Amino acid sequence: MQTTILDKQLSFLREIDRLKTVVRQSPLLDKSRKENSAEHSWHLAMYALLLNEYACGPVNTNRVVQMLLLHDIVEIDVGDFPIHSDSSGSFQAEEESKAAERLFGLLPQQQGNEFLALWREFERAETEDAKFAKALDRFQPLLVNVFTHGGTWTENDVSLEQVFSRYGPVIQRGAPQLWAVCEQWVTQHFSEQALRVSGMPKDSTG
Amino acid sequence: MQTTILDKQLSFLREIDRLKTVVRQSPLLDKSRKENSAEHSWHLAMYALLLNEYACGPVNTNRVVQMLLLHDIVEIDVGDFPIHSDSSGSFQAEEESKAAERLFGLLPQQQGNEFLALWREFERAETEDAKFAKALDRFQPLLVNVFTHGGTWTENDVSLEQVFSRYGPVIQRGAPQLWAVCEQWVTQHFSEQALRVSGMPKDSTG
Repeated sequence: MQTTILDKQLSFLREIDRLKTVVRQSPLLDKSRKENSAEHSWHLAMYALLLNEYACGPVNTNRVVQMLLLHDIVEIDVGDFPIHSDSSGSFQAEEESKAAERLFGLLPQQQGNEFLALWREFERAETEDAKFAKALDRFQPLLVNVFTHGGTWTENDVSLEQVFSRYGPVIQRGAPQLWAVCEQWVTQHFSEQALRVSGMPKDSTG
Repeated sequence: MQTTILDKQLSFLREIDRLKTVVRQSPLLDKSRKENSAEHSWHLAMYALLLNEYACGPVNTNRVVQMLLLHDIVEIDVGDFPIHSDSSGSFQAEEESKAAERLFGLLPQQQGNEFLALWREFERAETEDAKFAKALDRFQPLLVNVFTHGGTWTENDVSLEQVFSRYGPVIQRGAPQLWAVCEQWVTQHFSEQALRVSGMPKDSTG
C-alpha cells in the first residue's frame, strides 16, 4: 500500500518537471532569455519568505510559500495566459480548473485534495494569505519590467494607465507598501520613456 | 528606515535572479536541455512538501522547504560542483561559505543571519531537517538519471558501485525508504544497460 502511495507521489513529481518548459512573457533580469514558470515559482517563494512584513494583514508565510510553489502548475496543461493579452477570463478559469483537477488528481487522495484546496484558495484571492500571494505574483513581473527598462510593457506597447489598472489593484490589496514603491517606479519609468521618445531625431521622411 | 530595509531585500531578490542562469549537469526529464539551479530548487521544495512522511525522523517540513529554496544560492558566485567531478571538497566548502556570506550579507542583518544559519545547517547535515533536505537533493538527480536512461551516469561513465557510494549514504541517512526504492531502480538500470552492451554487434575491426 505504501508503494502505491509513493508511486503516485513520484508520478506527480515527474509530471510537474514539465513546468520547467512553460515559458512566460517576462525576461530574466539579464535579458538573456524569457523566464519559465518553475523558476518563477521558486523566485516568488523567496519573495514571500523575505517580504512577509509588507502583507496587508497577518499571514502564514509557510502557507503563502506553498501556494506560490504550486500556483502555476496548471500551466503544464494550459500554458501561461499573459497579463497583456485579450484572452477571456472565464475561459481561462475553466481550463485552469480542469488542469488542477487532473494534475492534483495524480496524487494520493488526501494530498491531492489539500493541494487543490490551496490552489483554489489562491485563485479566489479572498484570504489574507491568498491576497498576499497574488500581490507578489503581480509585483515580481512589474519589478522585472522596471529593471529591464520596459520588458513586456515595451513589447506590448502598454501605457502607464494600463500598468496602473492591470497591476495596481492586486498589489495594493495584498501589499499596499509594495504598491507605493511600484507607483514611484512606474511613474519614473514612463517619464524617462517619454523623454527618450521626445529626444529622438525626427523622421526625415515626415 | 523602512525604505532602507526594503531596498536591501529587493537588491537580494534581484541578485538571486542569476540562479536561473546556473546550469546543472542533470537534464530535464524530456532531455530537451540541462536543468538550472533555480528550477531545481523549486522542484526540491515540492519533493519536500510531498515526501515528508519518508524522512528518517520527525522533520519540520516548512524548514526543510526553506532550506531547499536557498541551498543552492551560493552557486551564483561559485557555480555548480558536479557530484561526478574530482573537485576538492574542502576548496568547494570554503568557496561556498564565502559566497553565502556575501549573498546573505546583502539582506537586512536579521534576515541575512537567519538565512545564513539555515544554509549552514543544511551544509552540516546534522539535524533531522538537514539530513532529510540533503537526502532529497541526492534523490531527485538519481530519479532523473534513472528516468532518462542514464543521464549524467552515462555521460560520466559512472558504475553501479559509484552510484551506490555517491548517492547511497546521504539518501539512506535522511530517507531510508526512498533509498530502498533507489536500490531497485539502480540495480535494474545497470542490468538493462549490461544487456544492451552485450547485445551490441561486435566491432568488425576487432
